[in-house]
Amino acid sequence: MMMGDDVENGNLGPYLDRPRTFPNMRSKPYTPLIFRILRGINVRVLVILLFLGFGYVFYIGASTSPIIVFVFSVCIVSFLLSIYLTKWVLSKDEGPPEMAQISEAIRDGAEGFFKTQYGTISKMAVLLALVILSIYLFRNTTPQQESSGLGRATSACITVAAFLLGALCSGVAGYVGMWVSVRANVRVSSAARRSAREALQIAVRAGGFSALVVVGMAVIGIAILYATFYVWLGVDSPGSMKVTDLPLLLVGYGFGASFVALFAQLGGGIYTKAADVGADLVGKVEQGIPEDDPRNPAVIADLVGDNVGDCAARGADLFESIAAEIISAMILGGTMAQHCKIEDPSGFILFPLVVHSFDLVVSSIGILSIRGTRDSNVKVPLEDPMTILQKGYSVTIILAVLTFFGSTRWLLYTEQAPSAWLNFSLCGLVGIITAYVFVWITKYYTDYKHEPVRTLALSSSTGHGTNIIAGVSLGLESTAIPVLVISVSIISAFWLGHTSGLVDETGSPTGGLFGTAVATMGMLSTAAYILTMDMFGPIADNAGGIVEMSQQPESVREITDVLDAVGNTTKATTKGFAIGSAALASFLLFSAYMDEVSSFAREPFKQVDIAIPEVFIGGLLGSMLIFLFSAWACAAVGRTAQEVVKEVRRQFIERPGIMDYKEKPDYGRCVAIVASASLREMIKPGALAIVSPIVVGFLFRVLGHYTGHPLLGAKVVAALLMFATVSGILMALFLNTAGGAWDNAKKFIETGALGGKGSESHKAAVTGDTVGDPFKDTAGPSLHVLIKMLATITLVMAPVFL
Amino acid sequence: MMMGDDVENGNLGPYLDRPRTFPNMRSKPYTPLIFRILRGINVRVLVILLFLGFGYVFYIGASTSPIIVFVFSVCIVSFLLSIYLTKWVLSKDEGPPEMAQISEAIRDGAEGFFKTQYGTISKMAVLLALVILSIYLFRNTTPQQESSGLGRATSACITVAAFLLGALCSGVAGYVGMWVSVRANVRVSSAARRSAREALQIAVRAGGFSALVVVGMAVIGIAILYATFYVWLGVDSPGSMKVTDLPLLLVGYGFGASFVALFAQLGGGIYTKAADVGADLVGKVEQGIPEDDPRNPAVIADLVGDNVGDCAARGADLFESIAAEIISAMILGGTMAQHCKIEDPSGFILFPLVVHSFDLVVSSIGILSIRGTRDSNVKVPLEDPMTILQKGYSVTIILAVLTFFGSTRWLLYTEQAPSAWLNFSLCGLVGIITAYVFVWITKYYTDYKHEPVRTLALSSSTGHGTNIIAGVSLGLESTAIPVLVISVSIISAFWLGHTSGLVDETGSPTGGLFGTAVATMGMLSTAAYILTMDMFGPIADNAGGIVEMSQQPESVREITDVLDAVGNTTKATTKGFAIGSAALASFLLFSAYMDEVSSFAREPFKQVDIAIPEVFIGGLLGSMLIFLFSAWACAAVGRTAQEVVKEVRRQFIERPGIMDYKEKPDYGRCVAIVASASLREMIKPGALAIVSPIVVGFLFRVLGHYTGHPLLGAKVVAALLMFATVSGILMALFLNTAGGAWDNAKKFIETGALGGKGSESHKAAVTGDTVGDPFKDTAGPSLHVLIKMLATITLVMAPVFL
Repeated sequence: MMMGDDVENGNLGPYLDRPRTFPNMRSKPYTPLIFRILRGINVRVLVILLFLGFGYVFYIGASTSPIIVFVFSVCIVSFLLSIYLTKWVLSKDEGPPEMAQISEAIRDGAEGFFKTQYGTISKMAVLLALVILSIYLFRNTTPQQESSGLGRATSACITVAAFLLGALCSGVAGYVGMWVSVRANVRVSSAARRSAREALQIAVRAGGFSALVVVGMAVIGIAILYATFYVWLGVDSPGSMKVTDLPLLLVGYGFGASFVALFAQLGGGIYTKAADVGADLVGKVEQGIPEDDPRNPAVIADLVGDNVGDCAARGADLFESIAAEIISAMILGGTMAQHCKIEDPSGFILFPLVVHSFDLVVSSIGILSIRGTRDSNVKVPLEDPMTILQKGYSVTIILAVLTFFGSTRWLLYTEQAPSAWLNFSLCGLVGIITAYVFVWITKYYTDYKHEPVRTLALSSSTGHGTNIIAGVSLGLESTAIPVLVISVSIISAFWLGHTSGLVDETGSPTGGLFGTAVATMGMLSTAAYILTMDMFGPIADNAGGIVEMSQQPESVREITDVLDAVGNTTKATTKGFAIGSAALASFLLFSAYMDEVSSFAREPFKQVDIAIPEVFIGGLLGSMLIFLFSAWACAAVGRTAQEVVKEVRRQFIERPGIMDYKEKPDYGRCVAIVASASLREMIKPGALAIVSPIVVGFLFRVLGHYTGHPLLGAKVVAALLMFATVSGILMALFLNTAGGAWDNAKKFIETGALGGKGSESHKAAVTGDTVGDPFKDTAGPSLHVLIKMLATITLVMAPVFL
Repeated sequence: MMMGDDVENGNLGPYLDRPRTFPNMRSKPYTPLIFRILRGINVRVLVILLFLGFGYVFYIGASTSPIIVFVFSVCIVSFLLSIYLTKWVLSKDEGPPEMAQISEAIRDGAEGFFKTQYGTISKMAVLLALVILSIYLFRNTTPQQESSGLGRATSACITVAAFLLGALCSGVAGYVGMWVSVRANVRVSSAARRSAREALQIAVRAGGFSALVVVGMAVIGIAILYATFYVWLGVDSPGSMKVTDLPLLLVGYGFGASFVALFAQLGGGIYTKAADVGADLVGKVEQGIPEDDPRNPAVIADLVGDNVGDCAARGADLFESIAAEIISAMILGGTMAQHCKIEDPSGFILFPLVVHSFDLVVSSIGILSIRGTRDSNVKVPLEDPMTILQKGYSVTIILAVLTFFGSTRWLLYTEQAPSAWLNFSLCGLVGIITAYVFVWITKYYTDYKHEPVRTLALSSSTGHGTNIIAGVSLGLESTAIPVLVISVSIISAFWLGHTSGLVDETGSPTGGLFGTAVATMGMLSTAAYILTMDMFGPIADNAGGIVEMSQQPESVREITDVLDAVGNTTKATTKGFAIGSAALASFLLFSAYMDEVSSFAREPFKQVDIAIPEVFIGGLLGSMLIFLFSAWACAAVGRTAQEVVKEVRRQFIERPGIMDYKEKPDYGRCVAIVASASLREMIKPGALAIVSPIVVGFLFRVLGHYTGHPLLGAKVVAALLMFATVSGILMALFLNTAGGAWDNAKKFIETGALGGKGSESHKAAVTGDTVGDPFKDTAGPSLHVLIKMLATITLVMAPVFL
């Protein structure tokens, strides 16, 4: 304890005398199979293959539509840009050997977990692919499919291939996010010794690299699938499929992406928070040593957690958001174009791909606008990094508005309704404004500059109990304004679309839903920049950990602390953004589900009537699913954290020399415990999410069959989906906001308010922070993914319910 | 602190030397106006008035239906029985003067709060009555009303009169619950000095008194209204109203009841938990004095809280449950009888009244079956009071099943479907079994004999944080099985009703919904006994407090402690029961709402289609309402508790003599602070619940008018109602179970497990208990009422949305 106080007070004497060593857990460097194969090939062959690939891509693009060629070109340019960004980041130095050592330990832990985790996920994905295959081989075909000669086997292969490609791309997106963050962290730490600005720039460019790859891969993946199917199935030639039906074939891609994202987020979220809570409970609370202290056996596990939880999982999450949103908007655009008998519907169908291509362009400009100072050897006064990031965001958003107007005019102009494009661009504006307002609300409720967090901090002064009560009420209350904002934006976008002048065969206005879709696209039109800011957070957090562990001077730690604090804010706001777009995207996918069911059932399926008892029960089960899923996610963190606590306590007892630096803690054991526990714990909630809609749909289909109620299974699943979406949005808002507010209330007290560090208020605030950890980083973000996964699973599994 | 330890260890020397005095806060005895008027009348006049009243009641009963006469008779007999029970309880002695003194202080506090609270509520009720009157004067009339010559003015007067009568009866129900508990508590304390069995009997009979009055009043109130309208409007005579339309006129009664119950529960719930949390935080945690110690300035406020929170509020809550359930079942019975063209529909309409009449009979038998030992002067060994209560419950439930079968055969036999009555009695059985299972599930999750609470207690050993995480996950997880049970029982009751053989004009089976209604009645068919067990809890709790404060010997406290522990279990199980019946009742009221809307809109209103964006938003708003309401209810407790903490701290500082009994704490100030704060705090959540469905419905009606979407307001409100019901059920289950589990995890540790009292685990468990207090006694029970209030308000306010 004495020792801990010494270290906390900056008296590092006893530690600095001793050699610092960190475990080399690396058995051999891990690279996923696909990269190993690529590396094994001769460079010339690779170049030829690459050119052949490009050639194929542009050939099918050109055979499909010039728009596709444009999308391909933008994606390839941004991949080239991302390669430049990586090279730039990797060219930076790794700092002194102790930093590199720590960073290697983190990298090994993260890559090891990634390998096992994605191994498990791939096995499940293959199993699920077989299930989908067998279902589709026995499903009925739609009239459209029959008229286009699309057989069962083809349809099954298409869906399974799309599913596997989606899963693979999602995995790669996660890997890329983690790959760069475990390399950038140490470079940021090293740069922080020189200049704050340079450290910021490295973190931003590293984040930018993975953001560009994630968004680019979502866009190009869908574009390639679309173009391949277009050419292969001879779409729009007489006797074959119509282009407006094509997007429905892509849903498998969305499901694959969300399937992987769900498990990535669950496993990563449990990992990161179990290590964090476990390390804090023994280290900070029981032993009184500071955060990220090298004596804590769980500290490496904690730092690994930031990479697998925040970087890899968030990459997969955003990838899946964008994929789901593009596909649902394409389906809606196709359906609408068909109803309105628009001559060339490809503009409406491909619009989302173009929006995200421009997203890549404008976000790249935003990322590049954040520059280091010219002379990086001179220490400049610390500018607020938040201001710098905000400036970049302003650049991005202004350009995004302009390009959005441009792309609506380009693609959504139709002579039937000459002013429709203007209405739709206003829809996009609604989406952009909604995103802005969401970010602002999240800041209001979670930033200690505002009243809610201050009140929460004040309630810590009367004890642990009042702190928790106040935090729970704050979280529950914070759901209100976002719901009102979402409601207003859905209604206004719907209304703008409705009055766009587009009418169907019967002359009734029909653009409402597409208007909502365009608003969602507007919301996501700066996704790559948002993701950059989000990735920035864990990289800065890790850099701070490395600086702390390698015992750098106070001035270096100050720089990383500032970056870390900014990272916390950007992380919180991204969550607000993610849940807002999930709400809108689910609503779109729900409409797509209704269309899908009616085309398979060969009868109109326009209504989900909650006055029918079975349908009401479907809703009840859907909401319950959210509660149960959140319970299991939180409980998993609690259980795993308890295992960590026991292990750390055991090490402190069995190796008493750890506390005075005489013995080395066994970091590897903590990493192994957290890794295996979180892999085990992610299965239960994940399986619940996947199995329950299928089981419910199937059971009610059977019940409907015996009680003479047609389509009962499909209706019940629709209600399940809607109620789960609504409850999921509210629950995620509650969990994220309460967690963020507790975290910042603690930080507010640590600034010296209400007695400051070590006071009774601070202890109560730490309790709140611990409770908030699984809320905001495990259950909350998993719910974002769950909502969209439910929407895609119902789409793909629809044949089971019919 | 030393002193506190002395007292806790039973060393009462310093205290016993000093005279103990308690404040006489009574200015003048308070009796509500209505009782004062009755007292002012000459006894002979009163008897004559009473006979005239009986005469009127039986006259209108006889003119309506022999069934009504039966109901009247049963109610009057049970009122006589309840008078006997009161006399029996009041004839018991009040114990030594110090007990009586404490009891008087509690009574004054409770009556004072009741007076101000119900004063506020009455003003709001009158205001609302005026609003309803003006709305109904401008509403459209239904075709049925027109054909029966029921004008707008008559219809308005009927609704307003029913509303005010419902509010009045609910108020009386609350008053009666509190009246008996503040008198029985001291008598139970006194009896505990002699015999545990006698103390138990007094508590049960006092609870039984208020249960019989509450249920009897709900039944007779509706019966009188029904019979009066029947006679007044000349129902079933040519050219006037049909009897099957009559029940719809009664909805005002249900709304009045739920309106009062909502504010009673909110105000009482905030009062009791703010006082409890505030008293504990300073007394137990900071000063280390035991619970209910006379030196704690907030102790009287805490004991007052049990009476106004648990007795008065629960009385109003159950009154409202029964009223709402009877009315909705009558409406459904009437509608079904009309569709099936049953010759004499009165059996189907009056069935719920008969079920509850039998409820009065069988519960009375159950209550009376709990007898004192013959020789009350000899102390008998302590038998587990839970076993005794369970025996009484078994008697009640067996009789309830038999009478239920009897009444279905009597009233639901029709020649069109000779076996329908059997199906419906099976529906009743489904309801009874559901109630049983619900009680069992609640026990499983909240009793420390089972695994969940033990795991929760174990998680306290790793700190405050893990305890809260585990409690939250336990609560969220505990929603799953109840939802499955509710789902199965709704489906099976619906199916039993559906296959009953009753068919409508077109020959399609039509008894499904009525089957669900009968299941709800089955669930509530032992309501009076359940309410007795529930009322038993706070009376025993109060008795324990009085024993503690008057420093009785250890053996007396042991007896009240056992009774208190049993009371905790019965309280928790009643909540499970209440939420189960609320779920079923809301589903019925929803169907009634659909019928109501279609009769006013003069077009079929059979579907609520959540695929329409506006309707989806209605659902989102409904779920959000639940989150916001829970937030405000919890926050109110937190804020008020902080005021109490400050006041108690102030008294300890300003009057240092309190701790060594040299100065008297100012109990009155704490009572006054809690009372005024809880009155202020109950307004915001209450107003939210009442205003938001009206505003949402009206706004969307206007929007629908401008966008050419008929009935949009009604549809959006329907979605709001359904989503709020589903979220409300889940949230209430979560809050109640988590709160109960935390409470019992603390109790489990206090039995000596995991280090016992005073250990670190115990401190963490106390934090959990404090957090659970507003969950389980303020927000949770208020949600039960809210759900049903929403259902009745939408029924009454339907003209606003159309």
